[in-house]
Amino acid sequence: MSKNLFYLDDLSPGMRFTAGPITLTEEAIIAFAREYDPQPFHTDPEAAKTTFFKGHVASGWQTAAVTMRMLVDAAMPFAGGSIGLGVELTWPRPVRPGDALSVEMEVLDITHSSTKPGRAIATLRTTTTNQNGEIVQVMTSKNIVFGRGHVPGQPV
Amino acid sequence: MSKNLFYLDDLSPGMRFTAGPITLTEEAIIAFAREYDPQPFHTDPEAAKTTFFKGHVASGWQTAAVTMRMLVDAAMPFAGGSIGLGVELTWPRPVRPGDALSVEMEVLDITHSSTKPGRAIATLRTTTTNQNGEIVQVMTSKNIVFGRGHVPGQPV
Repeated sequence: MSKNLFYLDDLSPGMRFTAGPITLTEEAIIAFAREYDPQPFHTDPEAAKTTFFKGHVASGWQTAAVTMRMLVDAAMPFAGGSIGLGVELTWPRPVRPGDALSVEMEVLDITHSSTKPGRAIATLRTTTTNQNGEIVQVMTSKNIVFGRGHVPGQPV
Repeated sequence: MSKNLFYLDDLSPGMRFTAGPITLTEEAIIAFAREYDPQPFHTDPEAAKTTFFKGHVASGWQTAAVTMRMLVDAAMPFAGGSIGLGVELTWPRPVRPGDALSVEMEVLDITHSSTKPGRAIATLRTTTTNQNGEIVQVMTSKNIVFGRGHVPGQPV
């Protein structure tokens, strides 16, 4: 990986990172849903018309997965990786075929470990928006971040 | 779908539903990670040995996705579908190749809509465990549930 990596020492609340877009085609929505979320409003554009969503929509889990892809590619460039302990997710509006999703990740808080030097828990908010700037997912996560010389597997 | 569907009227706190197992092979873990979470501890069993996880692990988003598959298949048999507004997820331990995952979903609370008859928000806790009964994911979700005669697209 040639991207510029961020260590604990480089991070502070208010920092923002962005990535995207990734476009979700009708075919991609159907393929994901057949494997992981086989419900008519995700797998069948015609049947979807009479459902709660009144049309074909992506699984929220696909929105989460492509959000993760954008975080790994560019918007969460942490040395040692993007390692989440837990997340809160909301999906305020559905993703529809052809939507182009982007993410913005903001560092909300950094809490240093009291027992492990060079390690902290970062609280991060990742907002996923469509091509109209409408929010389709908000994720707040707790991630492990490592200081220089404290990344597992990297030489000190 | 021939499965027995549950309506709002059929649900009450304390009810539990189960499904699984689904086994995550090394190949499946790598395939998911290459698309959605391309980090060495997910994509490269050899390189994973020196990472935080000290070995090859599945993406937490894959655990979430296969959990959803088990909910749709059997453990969340709600008329009108499994429609989540938001979730909280924790991953207390990683999923490793060969792990066979199962889910248990418990209804925690049902809050009837004050404005929409025949509709409620269910609070649900879904626990995903491996073949040793160890918890790999806990999800608490808010889902829309529909009463008989109030499912979108179904005749009254």
